[in-house]
Amino acid sequence: MDQQPPLIEVCFSPFLYPVYEREGQIVVVIDVLRATSAICTAFEHGVKSMIPVASLEEAAAYKQQGYLVGAERDGLAIEGFDFGNSPFGYMSDRIKGKTVVITTTNGTQALNMARNAHSVVIGAFTNFTPLCSWLTKQNRNVLLLCSGWKNRFNLEDTLFAGAVADLLSRENGFRLGDGALATKYLYQNASTNPYRFLHNSSHKARLAALGLKDDIKYCLSFDKTKHIPKLINGELVSISSE
Amino acid sequence: MDQQPPLIEVCFSPFLYPVYEREGQIVVVIDVLRATSAICTAFEHGVKSMIPVASLEEAAAYKQQGYLVGAERDGLAIEGFDFGNSPFGYMSDRIKGKTVVITTTNGTQALNMARNAHSVVIGAFTNFTPLCSWLTKQNRNVLLLCSGWKNRFNLEDTLFAGAVADLLSRENGFRLGDGALATKYLYQNASTNPYRFLHNSSHKARLAALGLKDDIKYCLSFDKTKHIPKLINGELVSISSE
Repeated sequence: MDQQPPLIEVCFSPFLYPVYEREGQIVVVIDVLRATSAICTAFEHGVKSMIPVASLEEAAAYKQQGYLVGAERDGLAIEGFDFGNSPFGYMSDRIKGKTVVITTTNGTQALNMARNAHSVVIGAFTNFTPLCSWLTKQNRNVLLLCSGWKNRFNLEDTLFAGAVADLLSRENGFRLGDGALATKYLYQNASTNPYRFLHNSSHKARLAALGLKDDIKYCLSFDKTKHIPKLINGELVSISSE
Repeated sequence: MDQQPPLIEVCFSPFLYPVYEREGQIVVVIDVLRATSAICTAFEHGVKSMIPVASLEEAAAYKQQGYLVGAERDGLAIEGFDFGNSPFGYMSDRIKGKTVVITTTNGTQALNMARNAHSVVIGAFTNFTPLCSWLTKQNRNVLLLCSGWKNRFNLEDTLFAGAVADLLSRENGFRLGDGALATKYLYQNASTNPYRFLHNSSHKARLAALGLKDDIKYCLSFDKTKHIPKLINGELVSISSE
């Protein structure tokens, strides 16, 4: 193993993932507004596993087989499916013990890009502390993969990456690449009021226009769950007990 | 024309350029350490034009034809050529009135990616104020294209993008995309001492290890020239008088 402390890098777009792909690293997929926040919430409310799929066609095929399916594009739930990607939709007894399929504009695309990494886990403010504890124990390089918006940089995923980079560098001595350093500075700047910090962000405006301010506030809340969803054989399962 | 004020977006890697490519926008290619700083310096010292080329093979072919050629890879000047990409190398009477060919690790690759944009100009701290004045007059959307390091995010190009985003949004009402907003926050954080801000950056460390601290300080200095090098038919010429 490497003698140096592990390195944290941040990749700001799934499109850039090939540039940051390295053997042996843990990839944390981040889509704060709202896919990865919703996925954490689903585990907190008893989902057994989740199958992320990239296309609406795959999602529809699972739906036909009788699965519960969440489907979102451009901030809107798609008609004919069971959920969108609002975390509140997954606070439901319907999902208890079930496998739920999910497809979203950005988050599930990022998961798909990273599927061959050493480990792929889900990160959101909603599982911040358990995620950071788990990353610390692994003692491996970490790539924080921001899902962005249609392959473009976004501010909320960046902010979460900064929260992780800040904590793991300060408390656990992780080294930071340039992207991680930038997110850490941004987070330190914003941490007193992340909601206000995102005031001018494009996706917050997009969701606020759709009447989703409560979603935004929930998605910016720390530690709503102890679950760390991990991709194993194409399926997300909880490793909270590891 | 669009009724809204122009939009500034930032692209953090040449690899990501296809995601940010839009018709009609001005692309500012940024490689602060050191290609675009060196190019500005060359114009300040009387170069007539510069031909950016992507490969060492092309550079060698020009050299054989009798051109003066600058060539750098991984921070080092390549043997057999006239210059590397240190700005100090271009402070020379040898270049006066001449066309100089240049190839570098990152900057000339970014120029190559963006070559079909509406306009492509060179940005660096060394031509900051003239560049911003010119961008203001154009009243067009602007893409700040950071050359990064081998397609990865870097801190110094981001900082310069933030300086531009900060000025044009505050003084001229330009709108900012999420990436531009992030760079603006970073710049506002760093502006009291950019050299110190870059303390932990990877490329600063790389250059400092090569004994190039003076280069770094020079490249972080504002307004050493009035020239704005612009790509016209594959050749950079000065539009300082436009």
